[in-house]
Amino acid sequence: MKRLLAHGDILVWENDAFTCLKNGYLGIDGDRIDYLGADKPRAAYDEVKDMTGKLLLPGLINGHTHTGMSLLRGLGSDLPLDKWLFDTVFPVEDRLTDEDLRIGMELSMLEMIASGTTSFTDMYMAPGYTARAVLASGMKANLCRPMQSFDPDEAPMTCARMREMLALYDEWNGAGDGRIKTDFSIHAEYTCTEKMVRAAAEEAQKRGAGMHIHLSETEGEQRACVEKYGLTPAQWFDSLGAFAGRAYAAHGVWLTPEDRALLRDRGVTVVHCPESNLKLGSGVADVPAMVSEGLSVALGTDGAASNNNLNLMEEMHLASILHKGVRRDPTLLSPSRVLQMATVNGARLQGRTDTGALCVGNKADIVAVDMDRPHLTPNIDPLSNLVYSAQGADVCLTMADGRILYENGAFLTLDRDRILFEARKAAQRLLG
Amino acid sequence: MKRLLAHGDILVWENDAFTCLKNGYLGIDGDRIDYLGADKPRAAYDEVKDMTGKLLLPGLINGHTHTGMSLLRGLGSDLPLDKWLFDTVFPVEDRLTDEDLRIGMELSMLEMIASGTTSFTDMYMAPGYTARAVLASGMKANLCRPMQSFDPDEAPMTCARMREMLALYDEWNGAGDGRIKTDFSIHAEYTCTEKMVRAAAEEAQKRGAGMHIHLSETEGEQRACVEKYGLTPAQWFDSLGAFAGRAYAAHGVWLTPEDRALLRDRGVTVVHCPESNLKLGSGVADVPAMVSEGLSVALGTDGAASNNNLNLMEEMHLASILHKGVRRDPTLLSPSRVLQMATVNGARLQGRTDTGALCVGNKADIVAVDMDRPHLTPNIDPLSNLVYSAQGADVCLTMADGRILYENGAFLTLDRDRILFEARKAAQRLLG
Repeated sequence: MKRLLAHGDILVWENDAFTCLKNGYLGIDGDRIDYLGADKPRAAYDEVKDMTGKLLLPGLINGHTHTGMSLLRGLGSDLPLDKWLFDTVFPVEDRLTDEDLRIGMELSMLEMIASGTTSFTDMYMAPGYTARAVLASGMKANLCRPMQSFDPDEAPMTCARMREMLALYDEWNGAGDGRIKTDFSIHAEYTCTEKMVRAAAEEAQKRGAGMHIHLSETEGEQRACVEKYGLTPAQWFDSLGAFAGRAYAAHGVWLTPEDRALLRDRGVTVVHCPESNLKLGSGVADVPAMVSEGLSVALGTDGAASNNNLNLMEEMHLASILHKGVRRDPTLLSPSRVLQMATVNGARLQGRTDTGALCVGNKADIVAVDMDRPHLTPNIDPLSNLVYSAQGADVCLTMADGRILYENGAFLTLDRDRILFEARKAAQRLLG
Repeated sequence: MKRLLAHGDILVWENDAFTCLKNGYLGIDGDRIDYLGADKPRAAYDEVKDMTGKLLLPGLINGHTHTGMSLLRGLGSDLPLDKWLFDTVFPVEDRLTDEDLRIGMELSMLEMIASGTTSFTDMYMAPGYTARAVLASGMKANLCRPMQSFDPDEAPMTCARMREMLALYDEWNGAGDGRIKTDFSIHAEYTCTEKMVRAAAEEAQKRGAGMHIHLSETEGEQRACVEKYGLTPAQWFDSLGAFAGRAYAAHGVWLTPEDRALLRDRGVTVVHCPESNLKLGSGVADVPAMVSEGLSVALGTDGAASNNNLNLMEEMHLASILHKGVRRDPTLLSPSRVLQMATVNGARLQGRTDTGALCVGNKADIVAVDMDRPHLTPNIDPLSNLVYSAQGADVCLTMADGRILYENGAFLTLDRDRILFEARKAAQRLLG
């Protein structure tokens, strides 16, 4: 199947910036892009889609989320962090069944697909059980089973979580023609022993897998770690080998300048989650400094329990304006830069070399935004309109590996009504 | 015409908070609400609309915008404030014709209606010319002609802007059965003489009209005023009588604690415009302090040139999370509090006593949000879902004075296609 997207405005990544090719052509052969240009291609295509008035961009990549938590959306809003986590979230999480996790993940995928996300990096329970739902959805995902261990005598290689992680890797890494990748994960410094971090880092290294962690999210976490170890969380993880391979760290709100230099030198991607950091009162990460110092920064939504949605378009919008205001400099973080975080840098984080940008040879992970809307008119600057004015609901087409997942409000791979019904029923049982 | 909205979840304002009446009934007789309750009313209605799965709330009120600027959307993004204003915005504004202003306003109204706004407070050029467009749209608006004067010898009562303002008041105040109100306005401290402020304040007072100003938006403005007059902008305006009647001040980013006390004592409403303040690098207003000290705070989008949309749902979302993060306290500014800003407090600002809340006797200014969406499922806490998760595009019904302006994507009072066509043509002429 060869499909031509004709007459769309195409956001092309070149020389470290996105530029807009107006009224261009994007050809797809199977799962890959085989043409991109201003002129009509000579090759024949089975189907031509008129994309006049649409903006084509790479599928967005959510660098950090907990998809199974969507069933907890709106639970315990506006509580202090410890009350929210210990008195409301944890007790409900304890009751989540594997089926609940599958439903939560499907609900999350509906939402992500409808707002232009084609790939996500998840950290939650039972990833082996829920991986099947990812395959069926047509999305891409980096899955992991986060390690936690509070007992310094626990044997790393035989504990339940390590066994789950290794089984996840063996069964699912590379599944769906590479759509699923499995990474290793340490939940956080404050929930893990040194022995466990070392072991997980070694196992990840052996397999060339990634390492997904929470890092320096709150001031308290940062302070307690320095008190306990004489090291910041970044230094502590580094001393245990966690950054030896492809590694990515969610939040990074309280990183010191020395931490930032360390992460840059190790090539660690920081996943900026501005909505979650604001809503939980964690603070504002110094993303302008990270970018100017040469760190790779991706974007994440975090889970729906602390956001409360998985809409990466909102995250781009917020990332683009938040730092301008807090640092009082309107020239910071251009639309091109935040779109880079949500695409190019997300692909790097996931260890995927054939997505994150629209170019010949890359996988056809493509999103179209309908610019024929009052709030996107006039369309003087499509990048500016995309980042500052558009809503997730302006996405009219989401495609991964050349397969259409969503078009004009209709889901083509997931059963929306069944999932919403099951999600409501599960939430009622859990919370009602 | 009597219309019953049945089985919707209704956000009711009582005892200083919004609560949700599940599966309720809202009756409308002509332009007013004549029933609200959990039980089916006994009276007969001509039409019954099933609102199952919909959340009903008061029409949102945009407390500060410049609707004519929508044609400049995306112009000069990411420039320093002075370059943006002087090198890009002002030269284009100089070329705007009355027709351009009318088109920009219509474009703005499309966008506002589609995202749940029923009333707005405008500050821009040629309000008398564009008032006709407001009448036709079915929306409500407080219009003004902002005064500017740099010449201390200019005679206030005979200058062009004062004459325009007085003519606007005479011709339009109360038009459309009160849908249009006209207020007086001083653009800002740094663009006006003392003489002119005094005269405008007196004329507003004589007529019981409101006073619309920009106040303490940037640090530079605040500092320069203190250097020039030995007074903050708030003190300066107060000394000239500008706060003697109903008055409202956009931004208030750099208000001192003394300024806040002064504004509270004078009953001045501060219009919080978080997106514009962030995007232009102005800073973050201390809204939590304002609220805890008893100031009335409303919400505004500012103009599309500095936002870049007029979506008050986004503004609510941002106001609710921004201060939690910056002040590092997740208990600040609950969803109920920010919805109050966008409704109850907006109505107070506009001097309208019969809107801003859903209750018997009030005008039927009603918005319905479709909660049957993946990102609003489960719907454990409708207020939380509305403020933290919803998008403007989730609005499925917008009604003002009992008249449906928008339903399921269709505009019933404005010609969407004609307006978008004209807006593109005008933008091309202005910028192309």
